[in-house]
Amino acid sequence: MDKIVNNISTEPIDLESLTVTIVGTGLIGGSLGLVLKEKGIAKQVIGVDDNKKHQQRAKELGLIDEVLLLKHAVAKSDLVILAIPVNASNDVLPVILNMIDHQVVMDVGSTKKNVLDVVTNHPKRGRFVATHPMWGTEFSGPEAAVSDAFINKATVICGREESDGDALAVVEYIYKRIGMHLIYMDAAAHDLHAAYISHISHITSFALANTVLEKEKEENTIFELASAGFQSTVRLAKSNPATWVPIFKQNRENVLDVLNEHITQLRKFKSCLEKENYDYLYELIEHANGIQRILK
Amino acid sequence: MDKIVNNISTEPIDLESLTVTIVGTGLIGGSLGLVLKEKGIAKQVIGVDDNKKHQQRAKELGLIDEVLLLKHAVAKSDLVILAIPVNASNDVLPVILNMIDHQVVMDVGSTKKNVLDVVTNHPKRGRFVATHPMWGTEFSGPEAAVSDAFINKATVICGREESDGDALAVVEYIYKRIGMHLIYMDAAAHDLHAAYISHISHITSFALANTVLEKEKEENTIFELASAGFQSTVRLAKSNPATWVPIFKQNRENVLDVLNEHITQLRKFKSCLEKENYDYLYELIEHANGIQRILK
Repeated sequence: MDKIVNNISTEPIDLESLTVTIVGTGLIGGSLGLVLKEKGIAKQVIGVDDNKKHQQRAKELGLIDEVLLLKHAVAKSDLVILAIPVNASNDVLPVILNMIDHQVVMDVGSTKKNVLDVVTNHPKRGRFVATHPMWGTEFSGPEAAVSDAFINKATVICGREESDGDALAVVEYIYKRIGMHLIYMDAAAHDLHAAYISHISHITSFALANTVLEKEKEENTIFELASAGFQSTVRLAKSNPATWVPIFKQNRENVLDVLNEHITQLRKFKSCLEKENYDYLYELIEHANGIQRILK
Repeated sequence: MDKIVNNISTEPIDLESLTVTIVGTGLIGGSLGLVLKEKGIAKQVIGVDDNKKHQQRAKELGLIDEVLLLKHAVAKSDLVILAIPVNASNDVLPVILNMIDHQVVMDVGSTKKNVLDVVTNHPKRGRFVATHPMWGTEFSGPEAAVSDAFINKATVICGREESDGDALAVVEYIYKRIGMHLIYMDAAAHDLHAAYISHISHITSFALANTVLEKEKEENTIFELASAGFQSTVRLAKSNPATWVPIFKQNRENVLDVLNEHITQLRKFKSCLEKENYDYLYELIEHANGIQRILK
């Protein structure tokens, strides 16, 4: 894994007085607005959202200070943060790059190869920094935004060699100020790892919810009996399809690889039960326990 | 679901001054010992454990007051709680029932039909109350015991018609005193529901851990990137095989049914990705979102 501690040497934008536009005032964008304002990193946060209810609610909740049309927002800003579904991000990013001169643009999407491919030949490619802060919850919309998001989590930055040094420095500064540590990675490697440690979790959780909803018709029984363990494994099933379908689409091959492996692993459990091979079942579970080496 | 509010009418055992034996001083038994002592429900808690290290540690941690051999512990007790793996529980329960006269015996196992079948014709069957408190964590052993376990969770009681009224009353009293609410259910129904809302979660989590451990060789990357979502879906994979293999064995048919359905549901996601049918993928996720009707 390519991991580098960055030394910020130049600060062409006044980092103590940023005007920031957040496109997409939902869970991630809203949380960023909140923390940038609370920590005094942004002197002003402008919100842009196609969803007018979200935009209005984000302002009421103090996630953003002002609502503007995209072009006016971008013109006033030092930094533009794209926090919309990855398909929409791919559409709007070149439009924004066409609008800017000195501004920095970053995304926060869960896939990275696709968005970098979209802008690889754009004349303003250098102003863009592709990022993925490894934080989220199963909830969505401005109401889901929280101010203690991001702390002690990692942000992956991809394709930094193609970002201008000053643009990269602004983005790195902001992530560090909100308590994150930075990991630098090739976009293809990011998408593969993200399939393993994020995207597959969502699919297993969606499928588990559908399993229970399909077979357990007594919803009151689910509610009464559901232990913390069940709630833990199924909570991601509440996640928004508008966010997740584009992620699965953009990361289709990696997700399919991991999903195939996951079905293979589940079939081993099935086979143990069918054949009553409890010694091997024990071994499979002992092997799974190995995850505690990695995650406390 | 058969759900009845019980009226305790007789109290043949002095409920304010119980001596309790806990067989198995791990996560569940240890937590029960702690809470029974803290709330003053038990005047004395005796621990019995084949694992001498666990027994010793449980005493050091204050989960139990005293260590005795099983026969001496049972002779001194008003209540005996079996908190060992369900296979061991089935072996030792008839032995304990042979020892007792007035005592109450209860288990806390995750399967209920098997244990009730074992004692169905035992002359002391009436002294036994079959229970399943719907609480646990992925950790095991005395160190895992916590005093705020059980609060606001459900306990399922099965086969209560075959328990003596006074024995049932003691068990109901204790669960209510530690903050749980009671659900009465047929053992076969319990085992079916438990397969849906607990046992399958463990299998998906074990299989997810094995998927990631199999495919993601860069353990440092898992550690760095793992989001709260991944940790949430995989945390049950830390659970103890000595606890879980006997549960899966005893509830084999129900678990296989649910596991087959789960693999079918995962295949739908796979098929959507293979065929690039993103409309249906959206529908599958929307359907899964229905779990939020039931679980907040």
